[in-house]
Amino acid sequence: MPKFQPADAAPAELAALAVKTIKFLAIDAIEQANSGHPGLPMGAADYAHILWSRYLKFDPRDPSWPDRDRFILSAGHGSMLLYALLHLSGYDLPLDELKRFRQWGSRTPGHPESHLTAGVECTTGPLGQGFANGVGMAVAAKMAAARFPGLYNHRIWGLVSDGDMMEGISHEAASLAGHLRLGNLTYIYDDNHITLDGNLDESMDEDVGKRFEAYGWRTLHIDGHDHAQIASAFDQAIAEHERPFLILARTHIGNGAPHKHDTHKVHGEPLGKEETEATKRALGWPLDKPFYIPDEVKALWHGRAEELGRLHEAWRAEEKAWRAAHPELLEVYLATTERKVPGDLLAELAAAAPEKTDATRSLAGAVEQRAGALVPSLVGGDADLGGSTKTPIKDSPKVSSASFAGRNLRFGIREHAMGAMANGMSLYGMFIPFTATFLTFSDYMRPAIRLAALGRTQVVHVFTHDSVFLGEDGPTHQSIEHVSALRLIPNVDVWRPADALECAAAWSAALERTTGPTEIILSRQKVDSPPRKASPDEVARGGYVLVREDGGPPDVVFLATGSEVGLAVAAARALAQDKLRVRVVSLPCLEVFERQDPAWRAEVLPKAGRRVSIEAGRTTLWKSWVGEDGLTIGIDHFGASAPAAVIAEHLGFTAPLVAARVREWLKR
Amino acid sequence: MPKFQPADAAPAELAALAVKTIKFLAIDAIEQANSGHPGLPMGAADYAHILWSRYLKFDPRDPSWPDRDRFILSAGHGSMLLYALLHLSGYDLPLDELKRFRQWGSRTPGHPESHLTAGVECTTGPLGQGFANGVGMAVAAKMAAARFPGLYNHRIWGLVSDGDMMEGISHEAASLAGHLRLGNLTYIYDDNHITLDGNLDESMDEDVGKRFEAYGWRTLHIDGHDHAQIASAFDQAIAEHERPFLILARTHIGNGAPHKHDTHKVHGEPLGKEETEATKRALGWPLDKPFYIPDEVKALWHGRAEELGRLHEAWRAEEKAWRAAHPELLEVYLATTERKVPGDLLAELAAAAPEKTDATRSLAGAVEQRAGALVPSLVGGDADLGGSTKTPIKDSPKVSSASFAGRNLRFGIREHAMGAMANGMSLYGMFIPFTATFLTFSDYMRPAIRLAALGRTQVVHVFTHDSVFLGEDGPTHQSIEHVSALRLIPNVDVWRPADALECAAAWSAALERTTGPTEIILSRQKVDSPPRKASPDEVARGGYVLVREDGGPPDVVFLATGSEVGLAVAAARALAQDKLRVRVVSLPCLEVFERQDPAWRAEVLPKAGRRVSIEAGRTTLWKSWVGEDGLTIGIDHFGASAPAAVIAEHLGFTAPLVAARVREWLKR
Repeated sequence: MPKFQPADAAPAELAALAVKTIKFLAIDAIEQANSGHPGLPMGAADYAHILWSRYLKFDPRDPSWPDRDRFILSAGHGSMLLYALLHLSGYDLPLDELKRFRQWGSRTPGHPESHLTAGVECTTGPLGQGFANGVGMAVAAKMAAARFPGLYNHRIWGLVSDGDMMEGISHEAASLAGHLRLGNLTYIYDDNHITLDGNLDESMDEDVGKRFEAYGWRTLHIDGHDHAQIASAFDQAIAEHERPFLILARTHIGNGAPHKHDTHKVHGEPLGKEETEATKRALGWPLDKPFYIPDEVKALWHGRAEELGRLHEAWRAEEKAWRAAHPELLEVYLATTERKVPGDLLAELAAAAPEKTDATRSLAGAVEQRAGALVPSLVGGDADLGGSTKTPIKDSPKVSSASFAGRNLRFGIREHAMGAMANGMSLYGMFIPFTATFLTFSDYMRPAIRLAALGRTQVVHVFTHDSVFLGEDGPTHQSIEHVSALRLIPNVDVWRPADALECAAAWSAALERTTGPTEIILSRQKVDSPPRKASPDEVARGGYVLVREDGGPPDVVFLATGSEVGLAVAAARALAQDKLRVRVVSLPCLEVFERQDPAWRAEVLPKAGRRVSIEAGRTTLWKSWVGEDGLTIGIDHFGASAPAAVIAEHLGFTAPLVAARVREWLKR
Repeated sequence: MPKFQPADAAPAELAALAVKTIKFLAIDAIEQANSGHPGLPMGAADYAHILWSRYLKFDPRDPSWPDRDRFILSAGHGSMLLYALLHLSGYDLPLDELKRFRQWGSRTPGHPESHLTAGVECTTGPLGQGFANGVGMAVAAKMAAARFPGLYNHRIWGLVSDGDMMEGISHEAASLAGHLRLGNLTYIYDDNHITLDGNLDESMDEDVGKRFEAYGWRTLHIDGHDHAQIASAFDQAIAEHERPFLILARTHIGNGAPHKHDTHKVHGEPLGKEETEATKRALGWPLDKPFYIPDEVKALWHGRAEELGRLHEAWRAEEKAWRAAHPELLEVYLATTERKVPGDLLAELAAAAPEKTDATRSLAGAVEQRAGALVPSLVGGDADLGGSTKTPIKDSPKVSSASFAGRNLRFGIREHAMGAMANGMSLYGMFIPFTATFLTFSDYMRPAIRLAALGRTQVVHVFTHDSVFLGEDGPTHQSIEHVSALRLIPNVDVWRPADALECAAAWSAALERTTGPTEIILSRQKVDSPPRKASPDEVARGGYVLVREDGGPPDVVFLATGSEVGLAVAAARALAQDKLRVRVVSLPCLEVFERQDPAWRAEVLPKAGRRVSIEAGRTTLWKSWVGEDGLTIGIDHFGASAPAAVIAEHLGFTAPLVAARVREWLKR
């Protein structure tokens, strides 16, 4: 592969001019919007300029170059820093977009959104997420390099702030990054001693460097405004391959603002007209030219873009040669890099669905094995519960610092980092990551799931041990509200399969859905086998008639999901003996069902018949599905520690109890 | 105060017997339940015995002794360790309850639940929570000592595991504990090298001791089975007052089981009949006496209980003397320790409600100031957003390592620890803690909120910057689903006030609700002043008629919350010009409204009139409130970065747009 060389240092004066350009682009955009965070861009401009103009490997004209470095702005509130860099370096982000910072429909929202803006590698803002996204990307980069040796040689860079360091998710990700010896990861800690509310030392005084050394990171303290120290740090970073690297850059927030630098006033508010002018005067900047970019600075960036473009071209040529030299890898290379799934995935997975009575975690696990064989992009891991979630891909070694050739990551008991790392692994562009833990711990991952949904990032979240029937572990581990709570996040598809075929449909949908996360909710306990063999196509519609009533319109229609489908079927049988015409509708994915054409939905859920929903969790959302004369059977309180069968009996989740309750209700 | 003295060491043979008793109580209970985690109790029995029988200050006959030490089992899956200790030490937990471990209705659930079992200080299981609960308790203890000098002299002890150490929340809490120099906190890290799925070094190899030193903790490595080392460590712990103390106790999981010790098989499964017998044989324990407690062991614990009882009695006498000596503190002492709120709190807060147009965060902030003056137990803090949430209590200093006399904690950007620490502060028994951050970050706190609800713990969670009208910060910060998601957690009351009086009702309800958490959801932007002055009593019912229709039954009934109430009022005015009879119902708290008598609910929401809900978030739950011919106005997708007024216009949240939409819908 063509060797990357850092650009030579620009003359000091030009570098200073370029740094000021970044600062004032940020200041002017924030002034114009009358909203934003100028402090970080001003404090970070020195090292950001040096990183982007000399050390970062990318091609602004092709943001999808697989061998590019990734840059993560974990401190997403400093978005104008990133937008200034994207514009200056030649990405498709015109100055007009900077002028429309934080306005409706612009590509420069308050916090960076990866699906909106070319060159934004991940959606950041909620602190700590970007930190873990980058660790995920570094894992993905190692995995890519292990699969296709000789093709990739890039790094993950990130800018992290005090807030990132305080958030627990960064601890989880940093510990795992140290464990995995991610020598391709370099983070700059913008150590400015100021938070939104005041001085950092009012809430934190830990020794961050020592902490990261304890994780196994290499650390280096520098003056974040001293260009020689910055360049030396980056030189060391690109020579480091054994350990993740934290550069602790002491900076001054709002650097350059005569009255507001080093104060929290400059963190989250525009400088204001007066201070903006004072800053421009102090730094020798024209007062009458907002969004001014000196020609020399334009030329500097233009020249670098040309160099980088040539590097990219050379890589393309080498990649072509690599393909020719590795015919044995070509199929898997294309499948992986394009994240291909077979056209007949649903049929393949349906064929792999076990025909036996088992827990859906086991049934889905079997399906997943087939998915793993068919989709080389599928990689993932669990939060120390692989034995319980049944998700590790067999015949593939665990990923470790010694080898990233495997497909199974051990995230440790670090659910939040797992979620955000999976986002980063997906955003890296080559993998379809899955995560796995107990459903109750989806709460620990929720901020990451939300960002996957917002950023339209493909991730598969497997959650097992749903509802109360995990039994003895008790209410701390029993998810009552979690399925409903996941359904509330926009752009999330939540599957709660009832049997092996529904597990196949869930996995198929998850692998085919490239525009957001898919949740697969599974049982610890065995579920009943379905009363008939449905067709994969009907199941894939998210809702279908599993048991059709005999003759005439239905008197009662059950709407059920997951482990309660079997219960509905059994209750329906009991009710049929009362000469009632009972239909059972299985609704493994409400979101997919709601996207079906009206005819399908009306056919599955006719107007006729009184409706009963049954799902062993919160009933809130089901009320609108069953209507005003409907019945919702669910659980609206915390569970209890006891054997599953005892819980089922006490909470009314047995066929005789359900049938009796429906009979009673029908009388009313 | 009477000086606490550790008990003398028991003779080695008796101590060994006592340790074995703990192990076999745990083993036998788990065997009987055929479910549970024997590994931790077996590995921890040595130091647990020494801590509880010699160093821990408590009175088993009065679990509410305020000057007791608190013991936190953060690794809640080791619950049988705690139950064994509670039984042996003389708490009200009969052996029969141990025999009903993990059974329906027992006081020995799979994971400890503080509201169920005397002596259980907090509900644990989801890892990391107990760690942060204990830090909160240590803060509370420092606050108590600062308020009432000379009365309290106790410590917080905790047992934390690998899982606790990996979870991000423990990092947040540990960093803050170091910052606050919590010298009253001692945690034993059960360093057993084994997780549920295998060897710890497959997912973690950080230097935990070095990390905690970086936080400012004192650390000490010991052999967790060596009684002399253990006692020496505890001697050092009770002499430490400057720094939190981490004892890293190297232990062997399942210690004593001949074939399963040091393996992950012993983590989460019963030993099984064979290995149980082998263990009993190996340790010289009778095979035929399950739940066997040797008389000498009984006597040992009984003797200690007597000593502790006398200590407690002496404390009671001193407390009486203290009261007499401090008449000037008596009123606030009683109010604080009893967590008193005035009988006319609602009227008081209503009188303090500002009569001006403002953001609800500001209106609620003003109300909270009055609450702070009336309720000395009220303390709390924010996640580096106090300037924005308006929650800091004025005229009270920030809490710092130098002084805990103040009422305002700066939690830093550590939402998750903030939530769990607040739980611990409440469970400590003297304070009503509040927390504050932006609503979108409620996701970061969700596991802690859930445990507050499950544990029936009084906490006030203030969340500001709700919905999309925070504007330019964009979708990462705009809560679409969070209000609905919080409503899904059982035993949570969610208030979303529309005006100053509703803010008063929310704060009043939150302070009076002792059985669970209350969420107060507030706007960043100004809200309209209400069209009439409602009475505090109707507002306190969670739902009331704000604008009554003129003559005859209503044609349209608006159901609105928070900032959309003013919008509904304005839209109702526009619709009234079409000769429609329009009612506006404000529903600041659905949970409270649903607990009202049916007559009130029917009076507020009559059968007459078609219903329109309006809340700037997910519409899911509103569908059942408006019924099948109703209209839900909300937001079912992510927001956007733009000025608030522009967003409102685009998403239809202006009075003319709402009125137009309702008109259109009425035609259908």
